[in-house]
Amino acid sequence: MNVPRTIRLDLAYDGTDFHGWAAQRGPAIRTVEGELSAALEELLCEPVKLSVAGRTDAGVHARGQVASFKTTSARTTVQIRDFLNGRFAPEISVHAARDVKPGFDARFSASAREYGYAIDTSETPDPFTGRFTWHRPGRLNVAAMRRAGEVLVGSHDFTSFCRHPGAGRPTVRDLERLTVRRDGDLDVFRLRANAFLHQMVRIMVGTVVQVGEGRLSAADVGRILAAKDRSTAPKAAPAAGLTLERVVYGRRA
Amino acid sequence: MNVPRTIRLDLAYDGTDFHGWAAQRGPAIRTVEGELSAALEELLCEPVKLSVAGRTDAGVHARGQVASFKTTSARTTVQIRDFLNGRFAPEISVHAARDVKPGFDARFSASAREYGYAIDTSETPDPFTGRFTWHRPGRLNVAAMRRAGEVLVGSHDFTSFCRHPGAGRPTVRDLERLTVRRDGDLDVFRLRANAFLHQMVRIMVGTVVQVGEGRLSAADVGRILAAKDRSTAPKAAPAAGLTLERVVYGRRA
Repeated sequence: MNVPRTIRLDLAYDGTDFHGWAAQRGPAIRTVEGELSAALEELLCEPVKLSVAGRTDAGVHARGQVASFKTTSARTTVQIRDFLNGRFAPEISVHAARDVKPGFDARFSASAREYGYAIDTSETPDPFTGRFTWHRPGRLNVAAMRRAGEVLVGSHDFTSFCRHPGAGRPTVRDLERLTVRRDGDLDVFRLRANAFLHQMVRIMVGTVVQVGEGRLSAADVGRILAAKDRSTAPKAAPAAGLTLERVVYGRRA
Repeated sequence: MNVPRTIRLDLAYDGTDFHGWAAQRGPAIRTVEGELSAALEELLCEPVKLSVAGRTDAGVHARGQVASFKTTSARTTVQIRDFLNGRFAPEISVHAARDVKPGFDARFSASAREYGYAIDTSETPDPFTGRFTWHRPGRLNVAAMRRAGEVLVGSHDFTSFCRHPGAGRPTVRDLERLTVRRDGDLDVFRLRANAFLHQMVRIMVGTVVQVGEGRLSAADVGRILAAKDRSTAPKAAPAAGLTLERVVYGRRA
């Protein structure tokens, strides 16, 4: 028996053809966790339980996802990385596998998550970015969206922006940042919080875009936030535009 | 009966999941031409024969492809564009459909084609660009590749860089440009010629990359060109990295 180790994986994936991160019962349900843990069990010859920083939903992507697991295998981290890339790249790409201190847990050690959301505002879709953007033709008012974003920043009860709160679960989150920048025909959101509720980013983006369309005001967004009622907020923006960009550990960067 | 019209389509596609442009027999063979012509025949209620500027191979992409066809239908060009995008976007995206003068033919009116070829030289693949690049880890000597590219520029018999010349078909082409630029971890080729032979771009890129690896010299490339023998050149670079970027009509831009 080898010494127990904790391995950290830094990975990226195109979530288009996955039913999200979390493993589900049934072989027909293809998930990122399901694929990775089955491959790791095959390589390491023991059960593998992955912890993850961001449990992305169906169709959501990741550039800077972090997962971790414990193993007694003596496989090197380069063998682990290359085995996973040989099987899954480029759809899933493991940028690094490394040994970390035993207490590390990708989910519980994380202090913040950063998501990006990209909207393609051009008249016709783009095959080269289409898997990673929401194609919504027509200019949006970026200045108005920034003002609406500022209303949401801070420590609040985000019940209005949560699909399934879960009975008795805390719904307060600290939204540290919500910015919008225009890059050609793309409007790109960047959001950072200690953690996010279920579909929180997509519901916030869907709401702020209505401000960009002139259908809601920043004050309306404040009223939706104060209502603590999901039915007061617009529908969530599509999954395709959402990407988990980065996970922060330890002291805030 | 309406007046006969000639319609030009400017389109882009992700070629990953297509068996190339050209329609093939058998419903299981999915091609860009096959999908587009079937949809156009359904909309216009008459047979549609597409002409195309670049007959891309399986797995090859297009950003600035041009196709044309004749029709007697009275459908507006906006209806045609939106019908095709409604069915195929974002995998195929029609950026514009417009009426052009009767003599226009996407293939025979074109005076030059420009292709791009992207190599991802980073250690691990990238899910966000992986469908559109050749992942080939390790730095290449860009200066050496540029010198090799200069050897190929000009009007030459490119038999050594052609997969299927076709008996009696001309093999002389005028390669106007072959450049290489480094963009972060990407090495990006740009090639322009009056027309290209079958797999000419991919075989040239495969050859020039061997110069970038130090396995061939620019003089070797000159000898391969002079040999007029396909067996003297290395194998073609993979289809995924290749994109038809632009087609030039009329006077050279």
